[in-house]
Amino acid sequence: MPNARPPARAPGRRALRSVDTTTELTISSRNYSSWSLRGWLMLKFSGIAFREVQVAIDAPGARAELLLLAPSILVPCLTHRGVRVWDTLAIGEYLNEVAPQARLLPADAVQRAHCRSICGEMHSGFAAMRGSLPMNIRARLENFKVWSKARQDIDRIETIWQECLERYGGPYLFGEQRTLADAMFAPVASRFTTYAVALSAPSAGYRDTIMAMPEMAEWIAGALAEHEEVDELDMEF
Amino acid sequence: MPNARPPARAPGRRALRSVDTTTELTISSRNYSSWSLRGWLMLKFSGIAFREVQVAIDAPGARAELLLLAPSILVPCLTHRGVRVWDTLAIGEYLNEVAPQARLLPADAVQRAHCRSICGEMHSGFAAMRGSLPMNIRARLENFKVWSKARQDIDRIETIWQECLERYGGPYLFGEQRTLADAMFAPVASRFTTYAVALSAPSAGYRDTIMAMPEMAEWIAGALAEHEEVDELDMEF
Repeated sequence: MPNARPPARAPGRRALRSVDTTTELTISSRNYSSWSLRGWLMLKFSGIAFREVQVAIDAPGARAELLLLAPSILVPCLTHRGVRVWDTLAIGEYLNEVAPQARLLPADAVQRAHCRSICGEMHSGFAAMRGSLPMNIRARLENFKVWSKARQDIDRIETIWQECLERYGGPYLFGEQRTLADAMFAPVASRFTTYAVALSAPSAGYRDTIMAMPEMAEWIAGALAEHEEVDELDMEF
Repeated sequence: MPNARPPARAPGRRALRSVDTTTELTISSRNYSSWSLRGWLMLKFSGIAFREVQVAIDAPGARAELLLLAPSILVPCLTHRGVRVWDTLAIGEYLNEVAPQARLLPADAVQRAHCRSICGEMHSGFAAMRGSLPMNIRARLENFKVWSKARQDIDRIETIWQECLERYGGPYLFGEQRTLADAMFAPVASRFTTYAVALSAPSAGYRDTIMAMPEMAEWIAGALAEHEEVDELDMEF
């Protein structure tokens, strides 16, 4: 891993100020890649200016992430001041350290533990929902039948959301301030829209809050402008 | 969620000092539950004294964690000063905050980002290896055939380990100090032992380092003393 802080005046190196601006995020499909969306939102929330690098959806690492629901060291991948960070939660923790003013994690220790707990659940769980309701921003399926195991995942997500909204007062999961948790669950809001999933009123309200964020509007516009298609059959698991 | 710091002198409450000692970790099977092992090792590494609460392997949340490879809000679950933290990575981050002297994450920001990246890969990935080589401390399968997809996962794990060992000099992934990453990959060292997985010399050396930790010896002794059995057929995915 390259050194984080090259000496600003070393021969042949650019000054620190210019190195700082070379923040890059590697993403894949805006329409299909839920992990790309999470990393991208975290970086947007951080306020750090960045350049996007988009890889084709059939690039080996990108395809694995889309089709096998596997994480990839390729997508999303953040490069910041020469440091490469390649897991979505690791990107979130890194951004919280370098941009503390963005308050990507709650300031209160107990709320922070709560936030990390639900981020962790989203990071490693909900396989049935992720497999049977893959993110597909362009699609609308009004009569989609939700498989019972996916429904269990959705029920747990509704519980997570409602506990947060009740405890911290909304409109975001930890109150007025958007945190890593909102980025982690944003692709779920998109799935609930795509598959017209029946939700309780508080969950539907939170889904709409997420879908109405200006950053989501920007991401969705990008997804609508894409033309790559993933074979539906391949997506079925 | 209960308040983190109840006033020490409030009527009906115990003093803060005694509240501090009520640290509990909920685990399930020592033989089978890889997530229990991870959380337990993190807490051991932190130096915080704790009481274990063991749930039966057929408790609903515990069974889901073992058989469906799903995370559970039941196991592992840390309760510390009234705060409940229920995801393994969230437990690690929480312990790093309350026991900074244990240095559960590297002090260097770049190493810390690296550590979180590989912890994140282990947290959400390697589904093929986890499904086909489930943790089973008591078992020894000398002629186990590793499925090709699981081999790809194992190859990636070997790359992760070797990059760390070369860069930071071993014997642990980030040098002399044990970090969250060693706890995250400890169940993999156990799997490699159970299934006699062929490894490169550096990977085999790291596997042996982990298996020789006194905390692992304590955990393994507990696993050997357990008698609960999970139907092998159920474990096959």
